Amino acid sequence: MPRIYLKIAYDGTNYAGWQMQKNALGVETVINQALLKLTGEEIVIIGASRTDSGVHALGNVAVFDTCSTIPPKRFSYALNSLLPMDIRILESKEVPKEFHPRYTKEIRKTYEYRIDNSKLENPLQRLYSYHVHVDLDDHKMNEACKYLLGTHDFASFCAAHTQVKTTERTIYQAEVVRQGDQLIFRIQGNGFLYNMVRLITGTLLRVGRGFYEPIKVKEILEKRNRELSGPNVPPQGLILVEILYGNLEKENKL
Amino acid sequence: MPRIYLKIAYDGTNYAGWQMQKNALGVETVINQALLKLTGEEIVIIGASRTDSGVHALGNVAVFDTCSTIPPKRFSYALNSLLPMDIRILESKEVPKEFHPRYTKEIRKTYEYRIDNSKLENPLQRLYSYHVHVDLDDHKMNEACKYLLGTHDFASFCAAHTQVKTTERTIYQAEVVRQGDQLIFRIQGNGFLYNMVRLITGTLLRVGRGFYEPIKVKEILEKRNRELSGPNVPPQGLILVEILYGNLEKENKL
Repeated sequence: MPRIYLKIAYDGTNYAGWQMQKNALGVETVINQALLKLTGEEIVIIGASRTDSGVHALGNVAVFDTCSTIPPKRFSYALNSLLPMDIRILESKEVPKEFHPRYTKEIRKTYEYRIDNSKLENPLQRLYSYHVHVDLDDHKMNEACKYLLGTHDFASFCAAHTQVKTTERTIYQAEVVRQGDQLIFRIQGNGFLYNMVRLITGTLLRVGRGFYEPIKVKEILEKRNRELSGPNVPPQGLILVEILYGNLEKENKL
Repeated sequence: MPRIYLKIAYDGTNYAGWQMQKNALGVETVINQALLKLTGEEIVIIGASRTDSGVHALGNVAVFDTCSTIPPKRFSYALNSLLPMDIRILESKEVPKEFHPRYTKEIRKTYEYRIDNSKLENPLQRLYSYHVHVDLDDHKMNEACKYLLGTHDFASFCAAHTQVKTTERTIYQAEVVRQGDQLIFRIQGNGFLYNMVRLITGTLLRVGRGFYEPIKVKEILEKRNRELSGPNVPPQGLILVEILYGNLEKENKL
């Protein structure tokens, strides 16, 4: 019974998030239903990131085991013909039986948070960015990003009521790039706490507006107190861009 | 009774186009309704471009006359508070009584047609671009663009059943720019025939795929025969970017 890996892109606008909620469809559920139709098996896929309602993905990952004789690489085509256009399977392949998309070492996840920094909200970007009409100093925001790099306790940037073993995470990359009227905050780490990227973005926006000096991000980090970090910015600006599994890729197992 | 100018951006996804159709809402109608609510007057705005169903705008223009005492520059704020988020008034101001957004000399309209040239359709771009998964040679497409520049009879690039006095138009700018996986065809002219930008894009795509040499665009133009031009590409890739009124702007009347 081979284990199949899926790389998934979706527009989160019309979903309750990755997981199903009461009375609202999860991306996961839609894929499970398509797999049922395709294989006749009641498959429950295991996702790498349980993105929130309204959050998008260009590279979430999921796996499932199947008795189907469909060649692993053909699952993407077969599923895409059954899925709505706002969910696309970018790749499918067989992976080692022991591969788990969440419990694997050397995971690197990349998120982007997009800010529409035009004076008046661009209606063509409203579903994929957060509109901030005031001037933002992206140089200062970038300076603040440097304090995020490395291994830290990110308790200050973790939504309350979450149960995790540790709030320590390692950030490999964090930067703010301006592309015309759009500001893109890009962050790569070995994992992210609940609402972590959105809380960091909210704090960076305070830096960009001049309310905080960049060094304030270091201070907030060190105090490990959620009440000090910026507001949680809305979900539609957040995109899970990529998930890399370093060790497995090096060994050509993925 | 002052004449008010509106600069309008909209996401055309959920509309029948600028004008109302049977059983489907036009962008124009939604703005008229908001103006009725705001002023109590049954205003019918006059639009510059009657964009098709599914086509977007970042800078369409419309005017209306009103007895309202709302300061002209405040109309944008007042209307935006009543309009849905997929229609935004970017600017409002008083213009000379004789200004008509269609029957004015020295009009320059700019359109963009966006092509998602990634292998698999990006679900975050599906509403604002046309997905073409095969390789496209943007250098050849750009070479073909040169034949569009200047004043020509564009009868070959005009949908049938349209009544226009002349099919002659002047093109000031035409180019194809690649931004990552996205290909943007940008064209500026003094006016466009029905479906003209989409028919030109369809022809350029044949050049990009290697079916036509760039010079073929010149030949098609010269033959003035609609049957020779490329297929009409879908509406969601098309964006009316800007409309400039040269003479009025020079005289500071706009």
